[in-house]
Amino acid sequence: MPSIPKAADLAQGPVCPVPIAEYPQVLLAHGSGGRLTHNLVEKMFVPAFGNPQLDLQHDGAVLEPGAGRLAFTTDSFVVSPLFFPGGDIGELAIYGTVNDLAMCGAHPRYLSAGFILEEGLPMEILWRVVQSMQAAAVRAGVQIVTGDTKVVERGKGDGIFINTAGIGTLLPGANISPKRAKDGDAIILSGKIGEHGIAILSVRQGLTFDTDVKSDAAPLHCLVADVMDAAGDKVHVLRDPTRGGVASALNEIAEAAKVGMHLTEGAIGIVPAVESACEMLGLDPLYVANEGKCLAIVAPDAAETVLAAMKSNPLGKDAARIGTVVREPIGRVVLRTHIGSERIVDMLSGEQLPRIC
Amino acid sequence: MPSIPKAADLAQGPVCPVPIAEYPQVLLAHGSGGRLTHNLVEKMFVPAFGNPQLDLQHDGAVLEPGAGRLAFTTDSFVVSPLFFPGGDIGELAIYGTVNDLAMCGAHPRYLSAGFILEEGLPMEILWRVVQSMQAAAVRAGVQIVTGDTKVVERGKGDGIFINTAGIGTLLPGANISPKRAKDGDAIILSGKIGEHGIAILSVRQGLTFDTDVKSDAAPLHCLVADVMDAAGDKVHVLRDPTRGGVASALNEIAEAAKVGMHLTEGAIGIVPAVESACEMLGLDPLYVANEGKCLAIVAPDAAETVLAAMKSNPLGKDAARIGTVVREPIGRVVLRTHIGSERIVDMLSGEQLPRIC
Repeated sequence: MPSIPKAADLAQGPVCPVPIAEYPQVLLAHGSGGRLTHNLVEKMFVPAFGNPQLDLQHDGAVLEPGAGRLAFTTDSFVVSPLFFPGGDIGELAIYGTVNDLAMCGAHPRYLSAGFILEEGLPMEILWRVVQSMQAAAVRAGVQIVTGDTKVVERGKGDGIFINTAGIGTLLPGANISPKRAKDGDAIILSGKIGEHGIAILSVRQGLTFDTDVKSDAAPLHCLVADVMDAAGDKVHVLRDPTRGGVASALNEIAEAAKVGMHLTEGAIGIVPAVESACEMLGLDPLYVANEGKCLAIVAPDAAETVLAAMKSNPLGKDAARIGTVVREPIGRVVLRTHIGSERIVDMLSGEQLPRIC
Repeated sequence: MPSIPKAADLAQGPVCPVPIAEYPQVLLAHGSGGRLTHNLVEKMFVPAFGNPQLDLQHDGAVLEPGAGRLAFTTDSFVVSPLFFPGGDIGELAIYGTVNDLAMCGAHPRYLSAGFILEEGLPMEILWRVVQSMQAAAVRAGVQIVTGDTKVVERGKGDGIFINTAGIGTLLPGANISPKRAKDGDAIILSGKIGEHGIAILSVRQGLTFDTDVKSDAAPLHCLVADVMDAAGDKVHVLRDPTRGGVASALNEIAEAAKVGMHLTEGAIGIVPAVESACEMLGLDPLYVANEGKCLAIVAPDAAETVLAAMKSNPLGKDAARIGTVVREPIGRVVLRTHIGSERIVDMLSGEQLPRIC
């Protein structure tokens, strides 16, 4: 399990509540529904994520979200390594699902957490990840209300996989759908691209290189709320360009909405350290994952308002209009380069960066 | 990947919609957010699970469940092998979460599906599992409205892991909580025990034995609705005795409610083939997993009504009252044996049956 750091290498936090001396590692029995599963839930998950729902130790949570529309989403996290500059799998598992809810135009409220652990995982590592999830949940204002833990044999998993599903309540007036992108709409990006992907690669086995790039992982729901407040129904599409980056996100939207897109290369911000790492690795930053950026496709007359709303939020201070939705060619994203030429930004057909989230 | 059958060994169903000749196996690129991820979603998941929500290909689903209380639950499925007598991982992933919702006293409505696939998984196997999930979703009356797919390298996973989370609407009058079990309550079990666990073990590598035991995997929400209709608020606790079996489920409830329990050995039904397999393997059937059984702890004056309601449903035809909640000793489950002696049915502290669901 090369991707699991040794517990001794980690900075010390509060002491792990599961008696480490007795069970320093996760055993298969921690996943088989008996005493050890019960202990793990009672001593680690319930105190960490503590809320009245989890405290019931029921098969599920009972919620009263009130009337109205709900958003529901899920994501599994298999990022390798588990800890990376600027974040870890636990934080990512919270923000990833919080952001998917935000991209539906929803205010994130309740999360589930499903763990698939590999036998032999140091208990201290699990505890670190659980603490990180809780800190991220507090920052994002969501509650982890239900969960599940499974354990697989050594060599049948990779340390920790986490699934989170989430429920949010739709913001008033939200009408977000990839199909709503239309001719003339402005394409706005909330900040500079590629930091998350490069941060992961910089610590990946066999590839380690020196860079000060940190993951941009952050919860985007407040930024989205600002945008929705400013432009309401004129916000047509929201999307966080994670796996596959800005290029894949825009291609998916162009296909779904049956429109084309023109991008201006100079308008897409890239921090210098990301740019140089991409050059070294032969990567196009347009395809590199982000975990704290948002694309907004908005009616032309709302472009300035949305841009201003984003810039007034610290997470959107580098927001820029990066392009325009056009009628055709349908499903095609075209980039106008610095030197005035055009190139097609296609969806990648092969592998670029596996296990980036 | 010994637990994955060869595609050729499987009975033929409808042809897999992802071009098998081109991509006979799952590649890392199927999980990296580019063209192949998009193809997998568009050609396999959307047609199979087809509904207006998934068709949107958004980051999440927007639902209108109506006012009222909701249940929310999650479960990851890592069962090995993927296919077993009476079921497979896909069916289990649907019924498992449907049943967790039912055990909250809820009518199951929406499910998410998160796949963690191992590189090299035959596409045909995935297609079989996806079809099975869809058939199970139809049987259970739920929609798979949002999903996610990740791929990990060979040797970092085990074929297919599936997480499902679910949302259900609480049945009128439902007030189910493990803490509501109280002195004098009747403990009712909806059928005979141990079939799921024994079915899995009978085909597990290195253990294969001849038996005609099939998994009891089934959706229990209609049975629960019948019980709730019959006894409403007098139904105090519902629990499906999966991992860890009836013994672990009752121990957890006894601890949560701070009560004791008396069980009558003769009242707990076991099919003869399960009993003989358990004897051969040295297993206590009280600890063996079920996937289509329900424990109901109900007010004493509702015991007969609940029993009758269960028996009128095919999934509850072998229902029986198996014991009584008592004041003390707190947290302890005691079995009165055939010969009149008593033994404590504790929660198992070690490993019994890993990866049973």
